[in-house]
Amino acid sequence: MPTVSRRGLLGSGVAAAGVAGAFAAGRVTGEEDATAGAPSSYPFRGERQAGIVTPAQDRLHFAALDVTTDDRAELVDLLQRWTDAAERMTQGRPAGPVGPTQGSIYAPPDDTGEAIGLPPSRLTITFGFGPSLFVDEHGRDRFGIADRKPAALEPLPHFSADMLEPARTGGDLCIQACADDPQVAVHAVRNLVRMGFGTTAVRWSQLGFGRTSTTSTSQDTPRNLFGFKDGTANIKAEDAALLDDHVWVADGDDPKADWLVGGSYVVTRRINQTIEVWDRQPLGDQQDFIGRTKDTGAPLSGGSELTEPDFGVQGSDGPIIPRDAHVRVVHPEYNDGLRILRRGYNFVDGTDAIGGLDAGLFFIAYLRDPRTHFIPLQRTMAAHDALMEYLRFTGQAVFAVPPGTAAGEHVGQALFA
Amino acid sequence: MPTVSRRGLLGSGVAAAGVAGAFAAGRVTGEEDATAGAPSSYPFRGERQAGIVTPAQDRLHFAALDVTTDDRAELVDLLQRWTDAAERMTQGRPAGPVGPTQGSIYAPPDDTGEAIGLPPSRLTITFGFGPSLFVDEHGRDRFGIADRKPAALEPLPHFSADMLEPARTGGDLCIQACADDPQVAVHAVRNLVRMGFGTTAVRWSQLGFGRTSTTSTSQDTPRNLFGFKDGTANIKAEDAALLDDHVWVADGDDPKADWLVGGSYVVTRRINQTIEVWDRQPLGDQQDFIGRTKDTGAPLSGGSELTEPDFGVQGSDGPIIPRDAHVRVVHPEYNDGLRILRRGYNFVDGTDAIGGLDAGLFFIAYLRDPRTHFIPLQRTMAAHDALMEYLRFTGQAVFAVPPGTAAGEHVGQALFA
Repeated sequence: MPTVSRRGLLGSGVAAAGVAGAFAAGRVTGEEDATAGAPSSYPFRGERQAGIVTPAQDRLHFAALDVTTDDRAELVDLLQRWTDAAERMTQGRPAGPVGPTQGSIYAPPDDTGEAIGLPPSRLTITFGFGPSLFVDEHGRDRFGIADRKPAALEPLPHFSADMLEPARTGGDLCIQACADDPQVAVHAVRNLVRMGFGTTAVRWSQLGFGRTSTTSTSQDTPRNLFGFKDGTANIKAEDAALLDDHVWVADGDDPKADWLVGGSYVVTRRINQTIEVWDRQPLGDQQDFIGRTKDTGAPLSGGSELTEPDFGVQGSDGPIIPRDAHVRVVHPEYNDGLRILRRGYNFVDGTDAIGGLDAGLFFIAYLRDPRTHFIPLQRTMAAHDALMEYLRFTGQAVFAVPPGTAAGEHVGQALFA
Repeated sequence: MPTVSRRGLLGSGVAAAGVAGAFAAGRVTGEEDATAGAPSSYPFRGERQAGIVTPAQDRLHFAALDVTTDDRAELVDLLQRWTDAAERMTQGRPAGPVGPTQGSIYAPPDDTGEAIGLPPSRLTITFGFGPSLFVDEHGRDRFGIADRKPAALEPLPHFSADMLEPARTGGDLCIQACADDPQVAVHAVRNLVRMGFGTTAVRWSQLGFGRTSTTSTSQDTPRNLFGFKDGTANIKAEDAALLDDHVWVADGDDPKADWLVGGSYVVTRRINQTIEVWDRQPLGDQQDFIGRTKDTGAPLSGGSELTEPDFGVQGSDGPIIPRDAHVRVVHPEYNDGLRILRRGYNFVDGTDAIGGLDAGLFFIAYLRDPRTHFIPLQRTMAAHDALMEYLRFTGQAVFAVPPGTAAGEHVGQALFA
């Protein structure tokens, strides 16, 4: 079936209400894409937020925002408007009800227009709330929600090799937009940022040009900028029990934060890779650092990409998967069985100060509790992982990601109820 | 026909020579892509460099480099190795003859590996030579080519509203990589930069996520971040006479620079768009600034997108296409008939200092002579164009783009012969 495009809808002169009706009747949401066998769009509303276990789209625009008002009603009103806009845009419709070209010539359009004619592109928009939304840097409870702050939602500690830039760290709110087309992801973030003018300001934002993980067994494993397959052992959408154990916040996890049940936490880390140095390492060393072969991604202990590594296999000079190999250091077997859902993206942001590329991995992980699922893992990695020599951590943030939004509600409604 | 992938080739264990043979027999180059009806790859060698009139691909990685040696032989050797690598990569093969995973484990691979498994993605790689390659900032002729420097190849002058950052301006060499897949474009630039280690260093680089022009009548017109169609009136690959008049350097244009005949010049300008301010302008004002409607892209004087604007049509308050409308100010009718071939890309590079998006258009134009085809046009635009209020020029460069590379030659061979 052909993908319904913004251009087609707008060009036909259908009034906004009519368009909404057409979409509500299922003309786009849930339709199959003829070429890929996947839905051509994902609904914004549902039990969970989309963009977590959704098969990772190829392109990312992630933004962290600060709230510039102390007025709770203004913030709630923005969340309501963001919800409406996210619902529209994920269906391939404009950010506002009128659209980029159908309104009065005497008023600014309620959509900026650069996505006219582009299909929904499997856009997902995922919102999160940072620690500073609950208690700001001055200790203030600006929005009357401090007593609902999850105990797990604290700024991440300093880790070894962190070179965090304040302008790339933290944030009161986050918006993750993933799509097949970067112009659609950028359009979504830009229009949400625009709607927040006077209420929020962008603290930092990051584009990612290529996914580095699979979140569904239906996907091929992509490669990171070290040239290796990444995300082979990721939790997948199909692993319902693992998701319940390691990703979704469960009833009873935090009595103060019932509003987060069914949601998750997202940790982001901007990881510069010293790719010029990496590229001068022998192939065998690169494989030893990772613990997998570069071609198929099989563990050095043998088999194929999906074979479990066997850490007991000995080579001529110790274990064939070295003790500091990345795959061993972060493996659940050595980390109390813990798992995370990774959803990172490769980035290149121009040039660094010494004539190399400012490039790396924008790490995104969804997990049930940063205290148990991320901080110990990162400490272990910082202390023992051979890859650390080739990584520089330049930004990080953590957000609580509320559950999905039901019909008639706005994102995070239970928090502000 | 299925697209031949790097993964398929490598996985089959075919030796490098065998792969080359397969490609030489036409297994990829020139093949038709089943879904799009366009070739799935473009050959690097030919009468002209690819990436100029080639139908503009969706993604860009552009790099400007400085040469860090004074040794002419080293520079020529690099151009030879770049030529070989560009030929391989545009065919979907690795940067080096051995590849990312087939070599000794005791040596660094000759390809970085992140494009394993990805198809050619219509990659084009286009090289250019900047003014400072011929005469450096200290007036030195490092490579014995000062007497072959084209008279037209001078650093661009300062224009009104220029806020040029030195770290985004100039360069001895340039590499433009365009592809359907950004990971393929990034892989190409990264591997060429890597090969230049010790001979060149990156001065600046720029990713573009979405094309803003059409260079073939077979393409739809895309939209820039003002939300308007861009590039409607561009010169197209099919306009052979216009290309000869306005893009390709002709025999006799510059007796000192015979080596450039059949080539071109490329001008790049990093144009930040103040999109937050733009987004607050009424729809009618936006359309008046551009001189076209936002929905179909038709001139305000009527018709459809491809209708020629009629600047004589009067409205109730002067010409219906205002005197400072972009389409009028830069129209050939008011600029001695001159035309350029635009090939720009939208970019978002994170966040600016005041909580907006660091976003805009990376302008790329190919033209026959910057003195006649760019400088006067930019001066006119700077003085008269209504859009100027919403633009900040943060970087620029100019390069001479040699003609295509014949079999057995390296790019720019005639310059160094």
